[in-house]
Amino acid sequence: MQSMARDSPAASVARPASAGAGRGGDPYASRVGAFPERRQRLDPVLYGVPGDGDVLTPRQARAFRDDGYLVLAGLLSEKRVGALSAEMRRLFEDPGLRHREETITEPGSDVTRSVFRIHELCPVFRALARDPVLLDIARFILGDDVYLHQSRLNYKPGFDGREFYWHSDFETWHVEDGMPRMRAVSMSVLLSDNHEFNGPLMLVPGSHWVYLACVGETPEDHYKRSLKRQEYGVPDRENLSALIEEGGIAVPKGPAGSVIVFDCNMMHGSNGNITPYPRSNAFFVYNACSNRLVAPFGGRKPRPAFLAHRDFAPLRPL
Amino acid sequence: MQSMARDSPAASVARPASAGAGRGGDPYASRVGAFPERRQRLDPVLYGVPGDGDVLTPRQARAFRDDGYLVLAGLLSEKRVGALSAEMRRLFEDPGLRHREETITEPGSDVTRSVFRIHELCPVFRALARDPVLLDIARFILGDDVYLHQSRLNYKPGFDGREFYWHSDFETWHVEDGMPRMRAVSMSVLLSDNHEFNGPLMLVPGSHWVYLACVGETPEDHYKRSLKRQEYGVPDRENLSALIEEGGIAVPKGPAGSVIVFDCNMMHGSNGNITPYPRSNAFFVYNACSNRLVAPFGGRKPRPAFLAHRDFAPLRPL
Repeated sequence: MQSMARDSPAASVARPASAGAGRGGDPYASRVGAFPERRQRLDPVLYGVPGDGDVLTPRQARAFRDDGYLVLAGLLSEKRVGALSAEMRRLFEDPGLRHREETITEPGSDVTRSVFRIHELCPVFRALARDPVLLDIARFILGDDVYLHQSRLNYKPGFDGREFYWHSDFETWHVEDGMPRMRAVSMSVLLSDNHEFNGPLMLVPGSHWVYLACVGETPEDHYKRSLKRQEYGVPDRENLSALIEEGGIAVPKGPAGSVIVFDCNMMHGSNGNITPYPRSNAFFVYNACSNRLVAPFGGRKPRPAFLAHRDFAPLRPL
Repeated sequence: MQSMARDSPAASVARPASAGAGRGGDPYASRVGAFPERRQRLDPVLYGVPGDGDVLTPRQARAFRDDGYLVLAGLLSEKRVGALSAEMRRLFEDPGLRHREETITEPGSDVTRSVFRIHELCPVFRALARDPVLLDIARFILGDDVYLHQSRLNYKPGFDGREFYWHSDFETWHVEDGMPRMRAVSMSVLLSDNHEFNGPLMLVPGSHWVYLACVGETPEDHYKRSLKRQEYGVPDRENLSALIEEGGIAVPKGPAGSVIVFDCNMMHGSNGNITPYPRSNAFFVYNACSNRLVAPFGGRKPRPAFLAHRDFAPLRPL
């Protein structure tokens, strides 16, 4: 499968001429070595030029490049958040959806935690994914047309919301989905207020400049478990601690309607939540069209399309 | 056992003449009804008069009375914190201590989470418990001589520190230890920095004015499990949510050496911790000598002395 990836035209375009790092010419190989490894990122973070256009201020653009994330506080109106939240509740309570593969439940319970492919399941999230502001930001950052690599709704309940351990999304997307390079950006649209105490997203500023190759082979159909509890693609404690020592931990707070934009290789996670305040967000991953998926670099069969879309047509604003 | 408590001289002194609320004349009966119940606190919070003496400023005294807690930032010197932390590490790594009943390990592992009775196990914690500043605050708040009801070291590790669900300590101390009334105060001496993200103590301001009677009978030797995971004496979600709706959630931050003083009936808990930053503190519970223990109000045999001391001699400063 590794060779399939190498043979694919998209992959060969995406690979740099001097792919010296990593195994078999893959600079972002992971889960293949006996030891974890810290590598430098080989790709730009920001393709747009700070100051160009009016999508982001120069300060915002530089902050995204340097820190790897950006918080757009209160971007969406209260009314729109209300409509999105109502639709979220409908989706989560829909018994017809509960047993579909797009729906992920809490470990050991029947409570819905995530629903994937929301931009195809309902019009309001389809519109949100193609919101001109979000799309323009994604295109500015990635310097390319973009398509949706993944969309989902996340719900972390109150009282017993579980933690989500530290990880880089790119590591998984590269190994399990075949995303060649770091040229994708995530947007978390908050549908509830992010407090300091209800298990909010935690980011490690600057960690997006570093690639942590993890140990442990990926089992077949790993995604069925990993969406509930990550066991592979988990960064080692020593390198993780070093990243946090260098960059600290940022905990973006904000009211519902705020948008957290972060790089695909940002180290992030979240603590559990015993407070009565649930946490929910709509999550979109925009990938550069030039960075479209090839065969998974981990050598297994690709994850299903609801986790990693293979419709690479450029998104147009609605 | 309930009747034993009623027959004991100490208990009869402690009971008010008109103990109308609760069952069998116990205004703080809990784990006996089929439904949870919200009751008013019948005891003062602050016995000292704001402005009297120089132990607390009038503002601090009133804040403690109204909110139920107080943060004394950076009370202990860095040097003293260093000595206390070194002693903590020694205790936690002492193989001779690991299998004693005073030592509580993480659920499903051998990692030490708490060590009790530290004021008897080592001189530096003995001195800390009798620190004139801490003692004076306890005596001012409780308006009485005080003794140590409990002492312990808590260590919440980094990476996989577990949450501790909401509870009122007094509920347990009343039901399982026989503490008659709310006339005790807790002090958490921070031995590591409290960040917003490493599972710090969360308090519900004002919740100390309310008593939540819980459902579910207490099993024999409950403490052996409850120190790892509370299953009884757990507040119901509806009343808990109402308390939090009314008072909010306070998350005292502070450097190592700070002291968090809080009322015995304060609703509190903490989230888990996936960050590399462990959290540790020394915890002392001062009880008014006039409020000394009787037989447990839950009717079971008393918990062992390392959890609920029965040496009621007034503490003198060192």
